[in-house]
Amino acid sequence: MPEGKGVEAELRQANERFYRAFESLDLGRMEEVWLTDAAVTCIHPGWTLRAGWPEVRESWALIFGNTEMIRFAVTDVETFVRGTCGWAICLENILSATGGVALESRVLATNIFERREGRWALVHHHGSPVVTAAPPVRRPRVH
Amino acid sequence: MPEGKGVEAELRQANERFYRAFESLDLGRMEEVWLTDAAVTCIHPGWTLRAGWPEVRESWALIFGNTEMIRFAVTDVETFVRGTCGWAICLENILSATGGVALESRVLATNIFERREGRWALVHHHGSPVVTAAPPVRRPRVH
Repeated sequence: MPEGKGVEAELRQANERFYRAFESLDLGRMEEVWLTDAAVTCIHPGWTLRAGWPEVRESWALIFGNTEMIRFAVTDVETFVRGTCGWAICLENILSATGGVALESRVLATNIFERREGRWALVHHHGSPVVTAAPPVRRPRVH
Repeated sequence: MPEGKGVEAELRQANERFYRAFESLDLGRMEEVWLTDAAVTCIHPGWTLRAGWPEVRESWALIFGNTEMIRFAVTDVETFVRGTCGWAICLENILSATGGVALESRVLATNIFERREGRWALVHHHGSPVVTAAPPVRRPRVH
């Protein structure tokens, strides 16, 4: 069982690499982060599920093709390791530009990784918009 | 390693129990589904992160207190087992009533479970709104 602080630190690094790959808008770098098999899945904010590497890869191609620039300040990172499985939960503070328009946004992410041959590979990304900082009793309607 | 079809079927059942507990609007039943320790986390659609059982429990109390009725038709369930860790990804087709107003909505969920003493306990729930079925190239802006 590859548990312990070292393995958890490596999980954080893998999570960090995912966001650097996202910023690069380079499909090759994004591919290096993922386990590129049929069992991977991805939920982008507001999108339906993408399942299997070909669909997940296509989603990144679409995003990268429609994004001029994106920068992530990733905060509130919590990591969990259970055997060869681990996950990171974090807040993505995003500055992006699309069609010449700059946009600030916040997304909460769940990133699940699997440890294979001594490295953490991403198997599931779930990003969802943080709509409001208002008290949850006045939570926005789900659409 | 408790792998195999039986354990995966139990993961599906645990995921199903979560939604039946949600429908019951009964905190006691919801508590039975979770691993009630400090390492659990929850992201409701649009909300910020709740971390640790007291915060997660409070979020359910708020939702239950503000919901008159909720019914889930859970579809597109995909389950993944890796050792004592497992997760379910599914589409929640929701009919709910709040303040006398009925609402239909769709939420994509990532539910991570940990297997302890022969049962799957929920350790992380991440639900996010499905905004549109439109092609992802016209994806909605994240807020």
